Amino acid sequence: MKDKTFLMIPGPTPVPESVLLDMAKHPIGHRSSEFAKILESVYADLKYVFQTKNDVIVYTASGTGAMDAALSNLVNPGDKVLSLVIGNFGQRWAKIAAALGAEVDIIEVEPGKAIDPKTLKEKLDSDVNKEIKIVTLTQNETSTGVTNDVKTLVSMIREHGALSVVDGVTSLGAMTCKMDEWGIDVLVSGSQKGFMIPPGLSFLAANERAWEVQKQCKRPDFYFNWETNRKSVIANSTAFTPAVNLIVALKTALDMIKEEGLDNIIIRHEKIAKGLREAIRAIGLKLFVENDSIASTSITAVLPPDNITVPDIRKTLKEDYDIVVANGQNQLKDKIFRIGTLGFVSQRDAITAVGSLEAALHKLGHKFELGQGVAALIKYLNK
Amino acid sequence: MKDKTFLMIPGPTPVPESVLLDMAKHPIGHRSSEFAKILESVYADLKYVFQTKNDVIVYTASGTGAMDAALSNLVNPGDKVLSLVIGNFGQRWAKIAAALGAEVDIIEVEPGKAIDPKTLKEKLDSDVNKEIKIVTLTQNETSTGVTNDVKTLVSMIREHGALSVVDGVTSLGAMTCKMDEWGIDVLVSGSQKGFMIPPGLSFLAANERAWEVQKQCKRPDFYFNWETNRKSVIANSTAFTPAVNLIVALKTALDMIKEEGLDNIIIRHEKIAKGLREAIRAIGLKLFVENDSIASTSITAVLPPDNITVPDIRKTLKEDYDIVVANGQNQLKDKIFRIGTLGFVSQRDAITAVGSLEAALHKLGHKFELGQGVAALIKYLNK
Repeated sequence: MKDKTFLMIPGPTPVPESVLLDMAKHPIGHRSSEFAKILESVYADLKYVFQTKNDVIVYTASGTGAMDAALSNLVNPGDKVLSLVIGNFGQRWAKIAAALGAEVDIIEVEPGKAIDPKTLKEKLDSDVNKEIKIVTLTQNETSTGVTNDVKTLVSMIREHGALSVVDGVTSLGAMTCKMDEWGIDVLVSGSQKGFMIPPGLSFLAANERAWEVQKQCKRPDFYFNWETNRKSVIANSTAFTPAVNLIVALKTALDMIKEEGLDNIIIRHEKIAKGLREAIRAIGLKLFVENDSIASTSITAVLPPDNITVPDIRKTLKEDYDIVVANGQNQLKDKIFRIGTLGFVSQRDAITAVGSLEAALHKLGHKFELGQGVAALIKYLNK
Repeated sequence: MKDKTFLMIPGPTPVPESVLLDMAKHPIGHRSSEFAKILESVYADLKYVFQTKNDVIVYTASGTGAMDAALSNLVNPGDKVLSLVIGNFGQRWAKIAAALGAEVDIIEVEPGKAIDPKTLKEKLDSDVNKEIKIVTLTQNETSTGVTNDVKTLVSMIREHGALSVVDGVTSLGAMTCKMDEWGIDVLVSGSQKGFMIPPGLSFLAANERAWEVQKQCKRPDFYFNWETNRKSVIANSTAFTPAVNLIVALKTALDMIKEEGLDNIIIRHEKIAKGLREAIRAIGLKLFVENDSIASTSITAVLPPDNITVPDIRKTLKEDYDIVVANGQNQLKDKIFRIGTLGFVSQRDAITAVGSLEAALHKLGHKFELGQGVAALIKYLNK
């Protein structure tokens, strides 16, 4: 059936109709006063989602572009960077730092776990000469569905004196992330996640401590240069021709985010993800992240039952029920599947997902009491 | 009147309805087989527009992003780069090279002129030790409406031995540019121009000579890295989450380009731009680029008549006739206005533009025989 596909992957995420239709309008000139007004509103509302007073730069780029923008404005060759790695996206920070000539040290935990603050504390304490300049970390690790305790980790990094550079790509607009209150130095995010628009834009905010370090950067990348980009933000403009239609879409989406309210959005995500976890357990499947306290509220990784493969589950969900869930990445490929409940996702969507997952598993021969997943979800949602 | 705005700026350019509507569809997963098929088609058709057998990388970024991608994969600090500058976008190459630590030499001509091949020849001949590694140039200088003789310039650069790095942002899909036949080493372009889609994507192709130099690049940028990006092109994928909806739009636009045929598109652009030039003269205005042989066929820069200002002309065109034309940039601000006839532009649009320009000038008190602009245009189009 055409046009029925429903995405429940970690991104792109579903986009509201009003956003899609506004995006489909004829592009307007990016140097027009009309567009400047849209940018003014977008820049103000991004600060609200980032929970910051710092300017938020909008890059026409993937989320990885904003990650590159973060480090390529801070790192000089030979700088020491510590990367806290709990999955592929944590690893990406380390790769970017290495590409910039940094000396990269890594704290890595097995997939499905979060960074233990104690481990970080020990590492930072052992750095008596304060050689570590930057610590990179991930709030919500998309590859495993694990959330780090960013607040605690960042406070330790601040105490040490290094800069904290945080990937908020699949967390901003979905889970609590208070840039200023928590003292995050650099925070990046992407458009196709909590922001409810298609991919193509990414965002970066830096505080004054980070700006001081940026000034010492010998060769910040031209396209991603913070300074030229921030100058344009302040002028309600962009340094280069932006993805005009995506910014128009972002304006509409941010209006929706403000109307619902960030706190309500975070509660909605929590409720849906926790209800989904109850349902998964009731169906007799294992969650990849058993520990509720570190489980993501936007991505839920699930192990397939014995004798049923991840590709079969994904194929049946797609072909029979038009739902797309993600496979695991790299070493987790075919070991887990990942259900995204990120952005424009409602309780109804959770019911749809669980019901369809029950249907697919039933068809594939998994033995369980039909209806118990949906029942557990509804009980959780209605309690 | 709402929704009546018609863009006649050098970009964003008008977008066909079918492209806008395909772009407005719900995003699909960027790792799906459905999307891989779209990418396969897009990558093949980009080769057609680039007139090359080389792989064409698609970046989610502005045109400037692709320019950055070009040099940040070739330049090591201290390398000698020669930039041929005929306007702001030529200057941008020099700035990017400088940001990468290159030693930049510039041949600059006054705005409105093209690079004289003789000047380049002398410069290259004087480089007896072959120290110049890269020469950057612009095919169509958006800021002035001048086109360089890329074929001749590139052949000289090839003879010298340096790499030619060409900005085809406002030329590809609008004027003749034969990457392989002319021996261009690196060629970049952007989506919101001849490609008839909104801004947000940019393109880069490099030949084997350039790839050899890329291998010697010590620290290619992570996001823009040619190698990781080309690997994905070959796999009908993208290295990072791309602007999915813009790529869907690009597929539709490229289908239209193939259907019309590149040669026909180039003829259409020539006809419209030359007709527009006849009309401008008939109205009694001066063309900024008098020399027809170097005049752009996608952007026409015009001087205002005495006693009428550029802002007044732009304001009247916008407010009374819903047409947006561009002001001059930097030192040419308020000295010229620029009419874009790039991409999805028809003979009818040219008639609209000339008729509206006559109406605006008439209203502002310019003395000329009303109707003579439209008459000259029609005569040219119908001859």
